[in-house]
Amino acid sequence: MISKKMNPLVQNNSVIRVMFEEGKRLAAIYGAENVYDFSLGNPNVPAPQEVEDSILETLKEEDSTFIHGYMSNSGYEDVRETIAQDLNRRFGTKFGQGNILMTVGAASGLNIILKTILDLEDEVMTFAPYFVEYGNYVRNYDGRLVVVSPNTVDFQPNLEEFAEKITARTKAVIINTPNNPTGVIYSDETLTRLADILRVKSAEFGTEIVLISDEPYRELAYDGAVVPYVTKYYANTVVCYSYSKSLSLPGERIGYLVIPDELTDSKEVFTAATIANRVIGCVNAPSLIQRVIKRCIEKGAAVNLSAYDKNRNLLYNSLKEFGFECIKPEGAFYLFVKAPIADDKAFCAQAQKHNLLLVPGSSFACPGYVRIAYCVSYEQIERSLPAFEAVAKEYGLKK
Amino acid sequence: MISKKMNPLVQNNSVIRVMFEEGKRLAAIYGAENVYDFSLGNPNVPAPQEVEDSILETLKEEDSTFIHGYMSNSGYEDVRETIAQDLNRRFGTKFGQGNILMTVGAASGLNIILKTILDLEDEVMTFAPYFVEYGNYVRNYDGRLVVVSPNTVDFQPNLEEFAEKITARTKAVIINTPNNPTGVIYSDETLTRLADILRVKSAEFGTEIVLISDEPYRELAYDGAVVPYVTKYYANTVVCYSYSKSLSLPGERIGYLVIPDELTDSKEVFTAATIANRVIGCVNAPSLIQRVIKRCIEKGAAVNLSAYDKNRNLLYNSLKEFGFECIKPEGAFYLFVKAPIADDKAFCAQAQKHNLLLVPGSSFACPGYVRIAYCVSYEQIERSLPAFEAVAKEYGLKK
Repeated sequence: MISKKMNPLVQNNSVIRVMFEEGKRLAAIYGAENVYDFSLGNPNVPAPQEVEDSILETLKEEDSTFIHGYMSNSGYEDVRETIAQDLNRRFGTKFGQGNILMTVGAASGLNIILKTILDLEDEVMTFAPYFVEYGNYVRNYDGRLVVVSPNTVDFQPNLEEFAEKITARTKAVIINTPNNPTGVIYSDETLTRLADILRVKSAEFGTEIVLISDEPYRELAYDGAVVPYVTKYYANTVVCYSYSKSLSLPGERIGYLVIPDELTDSKEVFTAATIANRVIGCVNAPSLIQRVIKRCIEKGAAVNLSAYDKNRNLLYNSLKEFGFECIKPEGAFYLFVKAPIADDKAFCAQAQKHNLLLVPGSSFACPGYVRIAYCVSYEQIERSLPAFEAVAKEYGLKK
Repeated sequence: MISKKMNPLVQNNSVIRVMFEEGKRLAAIYGAENVYDFSLGNPNVPAPQEVEDSILETLKEEDSTFIHGYMSNSGYEDVRETIAQDLNRRFGTKFGQGNILMTVGAASGLNIILKTILDLEDEVMTFAPYFVEYGNYVRNYDGRLVVVSPNTVDFQPNLEEFAEKITARTKAVIINTPNNPTGVIYSDETLTRLADILRVKSAEFGTEIVLISDEPYRELAYDGAVVPYVTKYYANTVVCYSYSKSLSLPGERIGYLVIPDELTDSKEVFTAATIANRVIGCVNAPSLIQRVIKRCIEKGAAVNLSAYDKNRNLLYNSLKEFGFECIKPEGAFYLFVKAPIADDKAFCAQAQKHNLLLVPGSSFACPGYVRIAYCVSYEQIERSLPAFEAVAKEYGLKK
């Protein structure tokens, strides 16, 4: 009954999502406290109090048919203007509401911009390790994902290989910073060089290449690390943002696209993206939560970052002590750890025997590593440490 | 910059949505009270009190990370079970949570099922007049929309032409009852005959044909009219539902798919649809509103239907009195009126001179008619009557 295109997707259902279901199954058997599920980027830190306050205020102060009704497919103008001004204040940009398109999360934002620009067999590049859904999103619009192999020294993108792989069919590049799964923030130097390469190559081929910056982790940066704003490096940039992590609202599906004036055919792209939002069936971003976002920005709401930071330090320091190899993440809420054996899937299977649910790096096109999502309770990390230590001993990492 | 596929969409941006923007523009000039915008199906009846109550209770009684977090891509199990049991109680069906997939409204539900089943150049049939987005949804997955011409006698589907147009490539049929734009409810006799034709033709061609029932207006039926439940007529049925109208929540983007056990490869289709929900970028239906839907069902919440009924009677009776030709709608909140001239667009342009915003029937593949959405205030209808009467006189309808 199902289509040829869906068939491989059903056969290779998302490892992460399958693990999420597996975690629920194990928890039912062993008790939730004895299963150490590090598989999903589902924030454990609650939404800031301002979210609930803003919901209550919206219900009290705004009209029901307005709160729950249709608005322009691109979102409420006042919400978009508030977001634009907030970005301008923080990053020195010059956006207005006409540059902001409210979306059903960043995943939908990515689909919208890809639908807007991709023709059959256009190439979209990304850097391993990368969020596997990018391949599915690109194939939704009959594009081809071209993957640049990982630089496992510091997990900044491999720009030499990138420059070599750009062709006349390259229509877009997706970057993700702070990065899932590595936690690395792309540096000022990286973005400067990447933008230079794009300018040189698009001039060489006479093409327009769109840099799509997928930024759900923008606000999750530790030790005062700066996350450069990508539109300032390259004119043809589109930003995909989500409040999933910054306000702990992943289930609410709320985010936005930034389509700057500097982008070629900016107004037409904005119109087309608004139409794409409609025809892919989203129609608009959920309305009440749009209203809430405006109030949260005005209140300066932010998730409690110190909880993640505390997790990061405990887990990183412990794993290093147990003999694991791993760079210290500057952002997001993932640790990307070198597996002690080449076969990361076999390593994950072994870890699972200790009720540790980890995601193999091969799910991010970077075999030999595993992703550990530390957006869990501090207590879960504490309880899991003996299991990690036991695994380390099994592989002879711990002296 | 934009793709070849998006180009025609940008050139022919939705007439209805353009009119929505036009309505806002005219309101700014003439004042909202002097513009009679009947263009958009944006409910004016507020959400029932149970919606606000349920939001407040959810925030008070459930945990923030649960309310706003990820759940299974198909939605919260308890919400889905509540919906299934409610359908069983009302329609004598036998659904469980495994048959219900929560979606970002019915529009997204349609996209999900079409992505799940359509192969390149598969044909999807529908009956004129129809919601124009169906064509866009089908083209998203490289299918071809095949339109059966309208039966303007009673606007039940033209089943003779339907039977003739089914081919070996027919993969799905979309019906919409109560119907947008006519307000007609497909009768028991219609559904019986339609199901018979599908069984005969799929046996003849050795194919599986999915009947997709798009039902955002199910609960909007007047004078006690019965809206038959389509899964009872034909095994390969998928229902797309939305709470946009029944709870006045169109901006919230909340609905569900019903994938019955009787559907061929039901479990696989459900899995594939769940994956489709993820990869088209929705990931899941908005979480807080899912929780709210459960409570609203338990409370028996329903929109104030009598307000629409009052509008329906005033507008229908007045237009008949002015000499317009129109069948009395049994459901939804639209009147589908015969234009006094063949050119419905010219008629709409003339009506707009009186600040009446109507949608030409050609936008629904049924030229010669216009759609009037009466989900507006009773006062707007009262105020608009002199304008309708003036238009009727211009065309010599009113003696």
